[in-house]
Amino acid sequence: LLLPSSSDGNQRPNFIVMLMDDMGWGDLGVFGEPNKETPNLDRMATDGMLFPDFYSANPICSPSRASLMSGRLPIRNGFYTTNVHAHDAYTPQNIVGGIPENETLIPELLKEVGYKSKIIGKWHLGQQPQFHPLKHGFDEWFGAPNCHFGPYDDKSTPNILYYEEFQIKAGYSNLTQIYIQEGLDFIEKEVANGNPFFLYWTPDATHDPLYASEMFRGTSRRGLYGDAVRELDYGVGQILQKLKDLHVDNNTLVFFSSDNGAATYAKTAGGSNGPFLCGKQTTYEGGSREPTIAWWPGRVKAGQVSHQVGSLMDLYTTMASLSGVAVPKDRVIDGIDLTNVLLTNKEEERPLFYYRGNELMAVRLGKYKAHLWTYTNPLKEFEQGIDFCPGQFIQNLTTHDQVNHTLSPLLIHLARDPGEKYIIKSHTVEYKTAMPRLQAAVAAHRAKLVPGAPQLNWCDRAVMNWAPPGCEKLGKCLKGPQSKPFKCVWPH
Amino acid sequence: LLLPSSSDGNQRPNFIVMLMDDMGWGDLGVFGEPNKETPNLDRMATDGMLFPDFYSANPICSPSRASLMSGRLPIRNGFYTTNVHAHDAYTPQNIVGGIPENETLIPELLKEVGYKSKIIGKWHLGQQPQFHPLKHGFDEWFGAPNCHFGPYDDKSTPNILYYEEFQIKAGYSNLTQIYIQEGLDFIEKEVANGNPFFLYWTPDATHDPLYASEMFRGTSRRGLYGDAVRELDYGVGQILQKLKDLHVDNNTLVFFSSDNGAATYAKTAGGSNGPFLCGKQTTYEGGSREPTIAWWPGRVKAGQVSHQVGSLMDLYTTMASLSGVAVPKDRVIDGIDLTNVLLTNKEEERPLFYYRGNELMAVRLGKYKAHLWTYTNPLKEFEQGIDFCPGQFIQNLTTHDQVNHTLSPLLIHLARDPGEKYIIKSHTVEYKTAMPRLQAAVAAHRAKLVPGAPQLNWCDRAVMNWAPPGCEKLGKCLKGPQSKPFKCVWPH
Ligand SMILES: [Ca+2]
Ligand SMILES: [Ca+2]
Repeated sequence: LLLPSSSDGNQRPNFIVMLMDDMGWGDLGVFGEPNKETPNLDRMATDGMLFPDFYSANPICSPSRASLMSGRLPIRNGFYTTNVHAHDAYTPQNIVGGIPENETLIPELLKEVGYKSKIIGKWHLGQQPQFHPLKHGFDEWFGAPNCHFGPYDDKSTPNILYYEEFQIKAGYSNLTQIYIQEGLDFIEKEVANGNPFFLYWTPDATHDPLYASEMFRGTSRRGLYGDAVRELDYGVGQILQKLKDLHVDNNTLVFFSSDNGAATYAKTAGGSNGPFLCGKQTTYEGGSREPTIAWWPGRVKAGQVSHQVGSLMDLYTTMASLSGVAVPKDRVIDGIDLTNVLLTNKEEERPLFYYRGNELMAVRLGKYKAHLWTYTNPLKEFEQGIDFCPGQFIQNLTTHDQVNHTLSPLLIHLARDPGEKYIIKSHTVEYKTAMPRLQAAVAAHRAKLVPGAPQLNWCDRAVMNWAPPGCEKLGKCLKGPQSKPFKCVWPH
Repeated sequence: LLLPSSSDGNQRPNFIVMLMDDMGWGDLGVFGEPNKETPNLDRMATDGMLFPDFYSANPICSPSRASLMSGRLPIRNGFYTTNVHAHDAYTPQNIVGGIPENETLIPELLKEVGYKSKIIGKWHLGQQPQFHPLKHGFDEWFGAPNCHFGPYDDKSTPNILYYEEFQIKAGYSNLTQIYIQEGLDFIEKEVANGNPFFLYWTPDATHDPLYASEMFRGTSRRGLYGDAVRELDYGVGQILQKLKDLHVDNNTLVFFSSDNGAATYAKTAGGSNGPFLCGKQTTYEGGSREPTIAWWPGRVKAGQVSHQVGSLMDLYTTMASLSGVAVPKDRVIDGIDLTNVLLTNKEEERPLFYYRGNELMAVRLGKYKAHLWTYTNPLKEFEQGIDFCPGQFIQNLTTHDQVNHTLSPLLIHLARDPGEKYIIKSHTVEYKTAMPRLQAAVAAHRAKLVPGAPQLNWCDRAVMNWAPPGCEKLGKCLKGPQSKPFKCVWPH
């Protein structure tokens, strides 16, 4: 895969991907959060390129992250379940599967052209050791294999001794500060070593259980969630400043985004999706529209806005392109190369596919989105207070049943109706003009689709962290149960 | 009222109030509009002070504008109706009442200290000649007494010959360009004359019927509403640039805001209230939270955000204060002086009262809001498709009946819950701590309240523009009907 080296004088750029956890599009001041508490991110946008039409590949953590790492939709890389139709799945501690060996992750590609890669924070591509970052291209790893550190107990989620020092107690933890320092240290080290580097900085303070360090506790107008956002914003500022201080800012492309929409079901303990509909785990805009900024002083002109319909999967292809390494040719790569978007603010039309589990729920092309299926969460769950769309209700669209609209998809114009409130009637000229193009995009996608083997069907308590590294020293290794695989339960 | 003149060397600043019509908080890029089409306003915010917590005094045009002009709530200046409880009223062509003679409007105050004042655009403080701007302190007037120019016909709204040349045809009109040029001309003239000036620039292209000039038609990603916004944004840029070109930017305080929330019932032909609940004509946040920016190079520090709970009525008191004229002492003035907010970014706690017609519906103090009454619009109207809160529904809050919650008001924390989705339960410590302060503010307000005589009860077709100025020349004067007053009908 090695391309001609950069002996033409073009230095390979460093890459930093700052991926937040469950942070919503509407959580940044620059995207309209009314408390305006993200000065560093707002400045990053002013100094870089803002992407209001950027998406994660999936509305839930693990599949989203697997797609960012592999450049491929979950339906291809296996990060979905067939246990139940159109349900969200991820990688809890008892998951048997993980990122398949034959997926080529972006740090693996970058390694071929001399990059050093580090992940700081949440991985979530599989619980078992063979799925961990160091087995898939990363040179260094500081963080957690699954969701974030604690609170855990020895019995149901036996991580406690492994991550003891990072325990979150009543919303307090110093973990984001540690992640910031780890990031700064890695940058300093690799700049000193003269290596091009890839830093995947993915703290999780905005994922339940929320936390912030003492310095930030109680400082937000929004409560603990806002404290966490403020601390992450501070971290972004620290990292960008470090790049400037080391004079590598002109040679470092930094992306900021989030892995899925805000967890609206968490009510005021979750983030904001701004004007968008519903949130995490859904295929409405609130599920996967992400607060995205690109920053590369001297290369990406300051103060730009791009309405490119983008995906986190595009970072894969873009980083490959900019580092001069070819993406694998033996498989479909869903990410597109954003180099021209970044450097010349050109837009490229591309269809965007919204999956939930094993089902293609919706498609976007240009400003139009067609819902092929609609589904929030089961009525029974909703009646128990789990509300994916609090305060929102759109007839026929926010359905608690899984409704198949494939024969007459529900059409939305996302530029004049970002909140998906006004379904365009199927007898209109607009519908008849727009829909065939969307349907052609779906047909083309389906014609080529070869689903990967589903990785998120089987669970087994035996694979949990009963005896994580370091337990011997602490004398706290536990003996897990015998292997007894069962079909994972995915409630929505 | 004349204070010592500014012989101490402090030049009296010029004032420009740019008041939009039915533009929502969420319509500006800087407030999160996803299409990001307001570069001039976004820059104005970057160069000035942004007010995310700023309100109009009322959720509908006429009362809002009367309050801005008089510094007093509609319940005091008479801009409400008692024909029906808690209903919105305004000044259509057949209204008998208007701004009372004994209200002292801001241009009247400013005249005392040598200001020249001009209104460009919509007035809406009364149809009959005695209520017009030139009778209430303005030196010049270019615009319409009621809602904007056309489309009118001779029979139901006989304005057609008066405003013939400004007709709006199929969304096209050059009117905003004319308003821009009128503004630029006035500024040039008064700067040349050496007068301190007050320009009340209040175009109405974002009020139904929407319009844009040819230069802007079809340029927005959002449709005609967005075209109108883009043209207004362009106008803001032109006016600010003119101030710079004439070197009076350091001596001119410019406010940008809107008279009420976006008309959500207009669906995609209306604006956006961002994350806020409902819109125009309601006392939810979408009804009166306004996109507000202050700009005064050299005096108001660039790049600031103020969470001051502000009101358009405060412009009255602030302009009086900065120009060195006292506000009337013989009446309650509801506007507070924002001078310290602007110059030092201090915040002052003050209660904010949300009225609908003759009823106090809600109160805000600090970050808390208490709903004393809830009401959207009548169920019958709603069932006919007039929806004040499209896609939104909050149990007990977005009621179609007028519900009296005075005994146990519905409490909202607006900083962590700007969308008013999560009513704080009345048995909680938070409720018991916050509510007494809100109730005390209401009690203090009510104790002092002397409602003004209601001006919006009576209508009469005889007062309409049957023979407007200029009709003789065109030979098109009409003879109106005999006077036959009737109680105006206010449907919601
Ligand atoms: Ca997540
Ligand atoms: Ca209005």
